[in-house]
Amino acid sequence: METKFILTEKEMPTAWYNIQADLPVPLPPLVHPGTKEPTRLPPPLFPEALNEQEFSKERYIEIPEEVQQVYRTWRPTPLIRAYRLEKALDTPAKIFYKYEGVSPAGSHKPNTAVAQAYYAKKEGAKRLATETGAGQWGSALALGCQFFGLECKVYMVKVSYYQKPYRRVMMETWGAKCVPSPSEDTEIGRRILAEDPECTGSLGIAISEAVEDAFARDDSFYSLGSVLNYVLMHQTIVGQEAKKQMEMADVYPDMIVGCIGGGSNFAGVLLPFVKDKIEGKKPGLRIVCCEPQACPSVTKGPYAWDYGDVAGMAPIALMYTLGHTFVPPPVHAGGLRYHGIAPIICHLHRLGFVEAVALYQRPIFEAAVTFARTEGILPAPEPAHCIRVAIDEALKCRESGEKKTILIALSGHGHFDLGAYDEYLSGKLEDYEYPKEKVKEALTHLPEVPIPIPPPPIPMASP
Amino acid sequence: METKFILTEKEMPTAWYNIQADLPVPLPPLVHPGTKEPTRLPPPLFPEALNEQEFSKERYIEIPEEVQQVYRTWRPTPLIRAYRLEKALDTPAKIFYKYEGVSPAGSHKPNTAVAQAYYAKKEGAKRLATETGAGQWGSALALGCQFFGLECKVYMVKVSYYQKPYRRVMMETWGAKCVPSPSEDTEIGRRILAEDPECTGSLGIAISEAVEDAFARDDSFYSLGSVLNYVLMHQTIVGQEAKKQMEMADVYPDMIVGCIGGGSNFAGVLLPFVKDKIEGKKPGLRIVCCEPQACPSVTKGPYAWDYGDVAGMAPIALMYTLGHTFVPPPVHAGGLRYHGIAPIICHLHRLGFVEAVALYQRPIFEAAVTFARTEGILPAPEPAHCIRVAIDEALKCRESGEKKTILIALSGHGHFDLGAYDEYLSGKLEDYEYPKEKVKEALTHLPEVPIPIPPPPIPMASP
Repeated sequence: METKFILTEKEMPTAWYNIQADLPVPLPPLVHPGTKEPTRLPPPLFPEALNEQEFSKERYIEIPEEVQQVYRTWRPTPLIRAYRLEKALDTPAKIFYKYEGVSPAGSHKPNTAVAQAYYAKKEGAKRLATETGAGQWGSALALGCQFFGLECKVYMVKVSYYQKPYRRVMMETWGAKCVPSPSEDTEIGRRILAEDPECTGSLGIAISEAVEDAFARDDSFYSLGSVLNYVLMHQTIVGQEAKKQMEMADVYPDMIVGCIGGGSNFAGVLLPFVKDKIEGKKPGLRIVCCEPQACPSVTKGPYAWDYGDVAGMAPIALMYTLGHTFVPPPVHAGGLRYHGIAPIICHLHRLGFVEAVALYQRPIFEAAVTFARTEGILPAPEPAHCIRVAIDEALKCRESGEKKTILIALSGHGHFDLGAYDEYLSGKLEDYEYPKEKVKEALTHLPEVPIPIPPPPIPMASP
Repeated sequence: METKFILTEKEMPTAWYNIQADLPVPLPPLVHPGTKEPTRLPPPLFPEALNEQEFSKERYIEIPEEVQQVYRTWRPTPLIRAYRLEKALDTPAKIFYKYEGVSPAGSHKPNTAVAQAYYAKKEGAKRLATETGAGQWGSALALGCQFFGLECKVYMVKVSYYQKPYRRVMMETWGAKCVPSPSEDTEIGRRILAEDPECTGSLGIAISEAVEDAFARDDSFYSLGSVLNYVLMHQTIVGQEAKKQMEMADVYPDMIVGCIGGGSNFAGVLLPFVKDKIEGKKPGLRIVCCEPQACPSVTKGPYAWDYGDVAGMAPIALMYTLGHTFVPPPVHAGGLRYHGIAPIICHLHRLGFVEAVALYQRPIFEAAVTFARTEGILPAPEPAHCIRVAIDEALKCRESGEKKTILIALSGHGHFDLGAYDEYLSGKLEDYEYPKEKVKEALTHLPEVPIPIPPPPIPMASP
């Protein structure tokens, strides 16, 4: 009775999988925020290699040996059969989880952070600048930069900087410089502080500071941890491993569940599997993304052109969005509080390959505690969303007797989220309704783009 | 160039190794705190199976299948070659680390917690009681009890209860009841609170409360996380795995380094290797235990009869001790703040198989940061002690050109110790000298035991 399915280092995938080679309908373009014309990524901000990856149609892009070497410190990551969870649920379903919490930063984020640091170094940069909310992405990039001898400057939303000092200390331990945003280090930061010295910051402001920082210096690129095509592609090492591991376990999933903020973790797992669906091989496979009721981009947002960032400086993408000025309620799953969703995921949803579901946070913490009490691992609040969906599906199987195989994309541990667990266990955790009026207002600020939105296609696969 | 050496679940050891079968000189007895006569463990407090293991001379004791099943959630743990650390040190030495931080509790402690919960359940208990300082052991036992459906009551030193709420939340997430000690739940707790309502607690008080709790109830055993022979034996799964993994890497260590508080982590790694030394096969192998200058039991303490606990209720053991009433300075390596050391380790030290070294905490945090910046993983302050010694040895190899192989017992991660990292990085970390006068005073309280202490034997192996 094997519990973990482990690949050797030699079995680790050596190329990322690029879904753009296999999409039956090509992705809509990115649009320049100024000209409103199709655009590449702004060249001074991004390494050329990543700009090429963003639009590449090559099916497999080789992972540089230097990046593989770093991956091998913790990769391949385990695929684990949740025997004790199954038993507790008394379900005939088989539940597996692919666990990315074994990386030094505790999540899937280093898969792209390491790659981005490598390409930046290769193209002569000495430094990367980025923003971070609760610190998950900032700490992954600090780690990535440390491995390649790059400096790393992280603009961390001020309220989190003071509320979550441990994430800041992680970044500093890995040699990064982390400042509370708005900061005195940029024009825009100084301007905002002059107007409001008490400003607690926002992800939008932090992005603007990081972009200004990288623009102003010849030695720096700007780094983004989700949403972009190449970021999702770097994460496909997760799904490729999972696919091999499911083969070792002699199963194929009937259902894949993952949480979506920007979408990189979910995409990393699903993309190598969705290939089978596109090829018509696995019509029964259900791929379900989970989002908070407090920020339900896919289930409630229109498919529209919108800026990738709150400040309206980033390229415009066609995606499900709640409006780039929308500020979601403070759910504990900070990584899921993004107004849009990666264009690739939206596109796959439009094509009928992916479903979406929105969840309240109390039931997701109930699922997290059930998981911790059976499997031991304390999941982060983000992947606890898909644990909830997996549990509900397994309970349905108990009723129906179906022996479904469920794959959970367990993106990270919750060691820095125990304050949220405490709130749940002491009965103080609040649920947040979908803030309909705030979204309605935010959607009035969508940019006007003269490129028509394609009508919803006839679904290519039955969900 | 393999980085990780991974065993399959089928290769996981299925028996614990009992060093008592191979000791050239038998261990001194445990002594009853009242009668001062040789004694077994107090039967109502401990499961009979563990009492037998404590004094067994069987070389291998089978790991129950139910315990193996739980182990397989995270075991076998990885052995990792520290290539990037070696490169940063520019050393010809080969550095390996056996990493126990992948367990759900983040340390080696669950290896015995799971076994203890299993035997307690098997002998009809419904509940375990224990004490915890900073919460590492308490959370491991909470996890172990959860796996076997036992209740778990943890008396946590009050000052830590309020300073380290995350560890308490972990315990509660795993279903344990955790109270600040002194508590209103025991006679002794109530008595202390009546005298001093502001008492911040101590490990000694917490032990007394847990022991009283287990004594008073028919459905409960008391559980201890280190020092005892069977606890060390449960940890030998770590060293047995490491030995197989070193074989896979086609090396044998010249030096094994581990930190010692009670000694269970260090013993877990070294015992399967010391067997080779006892058999005369590996005379050149050096086994080095590392302790804080603030609490240097082996390097500064006499070999004497002393109580295992501060309250003087536990059996008396012959060991290196700083006196059971000694309260060490508040170094961040909370797990190393024990007045004595496991009798097995003291015995092996007396026989010349094990060396000891004491370290200040600033150089150990310097080593921890160097490790984090090269290998990614953030080590706990406890194993950072042996990382320091490994780095110093590797630097000596740079001078001498020797290609030594060094094995680090990396017992856990430092995710809950980032406050200490912050102190170090901001230059505020203090060193603590050996508190000579306090030890001198504590040593006046040693119990008188009428069993003579054997003279130091002629060393059986050159260190």
